[in-house]
Amino acid sequence: MLWMTEAQRAFLSAHRVAHLATSTLKGEPHVVPVCFVLDGEALFVVIDTKPKKVPPLQLKRLRNVQENPQVAVLVDTYSEDWTRLGYLLIYGSAEIVDDAEEHGKALRLLREKYPQYRSMPLEDRPVIKIRTERVISWGAVE
Amino acid sequence: MLWMTEAQRAFLSAHRVAHLATSTLKGEPHVVPVCFVLDGEALFVVIDTKPKKVPPLQLKRLRNVQENPQVAVLVDTYSEDWTRLGYLLIYGSAEIVDDAEEHGKALRLLREKYPQYRSMPLEDRPVIKIRTERVISWGAVE
Repeated sequence: MLWMTEAQRAFLSAHRVAHLATSTLKGEPHVVPVCFVLDGEALFVVIDTKPKKVPPLQLKRLRNVQENPQVAVLVDTYSEDWTRLGYLLIYGSAEIVDDAEEHGKALRLLREKYPQYRSMPLEDRPVIKIRTERVISWGAVE
Repeated sequence: MLWMTEAQRAFLSAHRVAHLATSTLKGEPHVVPVCFVLDGEALFVVIDTKPKKVPPLQLKRLRNVQENPQVAVLVDTYSEDWTRLGYLLIYGSAEIVDDAEEHGKALRLLREKYPQYRSMPLEDRPVIKIRTERVISWGAVE
């Protein structure tokens, strides 16, 4: 079953940054900007080599995902003309990709979308896969 | 005590949109774009009259805040030049403003920042106050 309309898929794919909200099981929310790519009904995000203060698996977003796979991903457009505001909010379930083939595919798709990733060594970096479960759209999305 | 540096305050104030992450007590995260204004160490957000599918107090962000005041607010800059990426992540505690004077002040500050609010009837709309507790900055913020 496909969760998204063509217009929603186009809106998502046209955006360069999303906001990934995670939470501990105790309900402590966290949110970071992420680069992402859409593949069918899933999103892929790589923990890339932009500077980080801690090793990848200690990052809050990954600790939260390992403790609690429930995530929300927001892609939005801001404009001073408020009739043009719009967003897509995705509820999903996140996991760290284990399968080497899927990991390779995610990197290939991310490098197609982001030239910046082409020269970045990502082969050993964790990839998060987000299975979309529900999509809410608001405003100027379609 | 002031939590934020002058540079962090300037970064926040210069941004027109933030991303407000809330969560149920069971750890179901939610995130929406919000207009906001900084006042001292607090942020104010009004549930404005942009179209909503449900009455204000039934909005997910407000139901979450009433169930669980812990929030995270992200303000970020995206650029295709990834050396210019930056964000400010604020952990805080949210409440719905009860005091009429504080409500009036929040609207005044929001209307100074957003001309779009000046003609919008907001006097009866809920205002969320977020007390900032911890600030994390990353990348090109200062």
